[in-house]
Amino acid sequence: MKEQHKKDSLNRLKTVRGHIDSVIRMVEEERYCPDIMKQVSALQGSLERVNRVLLQNHLETCVTHAIQEGRTEEIVEELMETMRYTAAVTGPANPKEST
Amino acid sequence: MKEQHKKDSLNRLKTVRGHIDSVIRMVEEERYCPDIMKQVSALQGSLERVNRVLLQNHLETCVTHAIQEGRTEEIVEELMETMRYTAAVTGPANPKEST
Amino acid sequence: MKEQHKKDSLNRLKTVRGHIDSVIRMVEEERYCPDIMKQVSALQGSLERVNRVLLQNHLETCVTHAIQEGRTEEIVEELMETMRYTAAVTGPANPKEST
Amino acid sequence: MKEQHKKDSLNRLKTVRGHIDSVIRMVEEERYCPDIMKQVSALQGSLERVNRVLLQNHLETCVTHAIQEGRTEEIVEELMETMRYTAAVTGPANPKEST
Repeated sequence: MKEQHKKDSLNRLKTVRGHIDSVIRMVEEERYCPDIMKQVSALQGSLERVNRVLLQNHLETCVTHAIQEGRTEEIVEELMETMRYTAAVTGPANPKEST
Repeated sequence: MKEQHKKDSLNRLKTVRGHIDSVIRMVEEERYCPDIMKQVSALQGSLERVNRVLLQNHLETCVTHAIQEGRTEEIVEELMETMRYTAAVTGPANPKEST
Repeated sequence: MKEQHKKDSLNRLKTVRGHIDSVIRMVEEERYCPDIMKQVSALQGSLERVNRVLLQNHLETCVTHAIQEGRTEEIVEELMETMRYTAAVTGPANPKEST
Repeated sequence: MKEQHKKDSLNRLKTVRGHIDSVIRMVEEERYCPDIMKQVSALQGSLERVNRVLLQNHLETCVTHAIQEGRTEEIVEELMETMRYTAAVTGPANPKEST
């Protein structure tokens, strides 16, 4: 794993862990549900960015090596499979953008 | 907050917290990126289910009270706003059976 | 269905229909895949907004009536079920926001 | 574009176009909103699968060529950018089995 991607994803994950603790407190204190929901959604967004870092790392390392060695079919299949289980490739883009 | 929803969302959030720690270890050990990505995605799914519980609680309590008191417009506007910031109402995908 | 929501969702759906035709042409002309992908994603976003309009209409009409008639449990259950099949309640928020 | 991917994505897009027409009719007939929402969501899922086909094609053709020519950094950057604008890489949900 590239040092920069490892550091970046670790920082983000540790931030998420701290943020989770504060969301747990919000539930314990029975704060207003929409406020908690926004925080939970922010956590999902942070995890999404972790996965983007991991994907970029994967593309720059394993996928690149595999293609250079002629194992394109195999690595693309695995990548599509990963995104089948883990991912919406596109999603509804940016719900905030217009209403 | 209804006791059942509070308990359910707290249990789920605490499970996420433990799961985050194991994902952090996976990154530290530089495990295979697609394997980590799948775990991160599972975390996102767990948080999604937390938000569903909170939404259900909100509908059953605050939204119901507001509508009974004739504050429909106001509460629906707030709900749409909450989902504007926090949410894809639909999304391209079929959420996993909740677990 | 409220006139405003009906008109709004119909306009959006008809725009999507026209947009689909242009995406079909892009594929027929074998345009650059990332360019097509962005258009497909824009379509998903447009459909997302249609569903928000429909959800708002549903909340303002059927859900409100049901709650006023004391059928809260039933209507919330149906709503959660609708969003179970059709929806990510939250989603990863806004992927664009930070990188 | 590979013939198989072109044909597949065109077929899917044309199915979406027909499906949109039936959703427009549902709105015109003021059918029950949750029923319409489920259909709109199915459309989003179909578009998601179109984008997966296009992504797979892009990986197997342009991305592979670029990496073989040593333009890894450039092509990965563009890919991440495409997915930044078009995509949730992961999302909270498990995409339906492609059909």
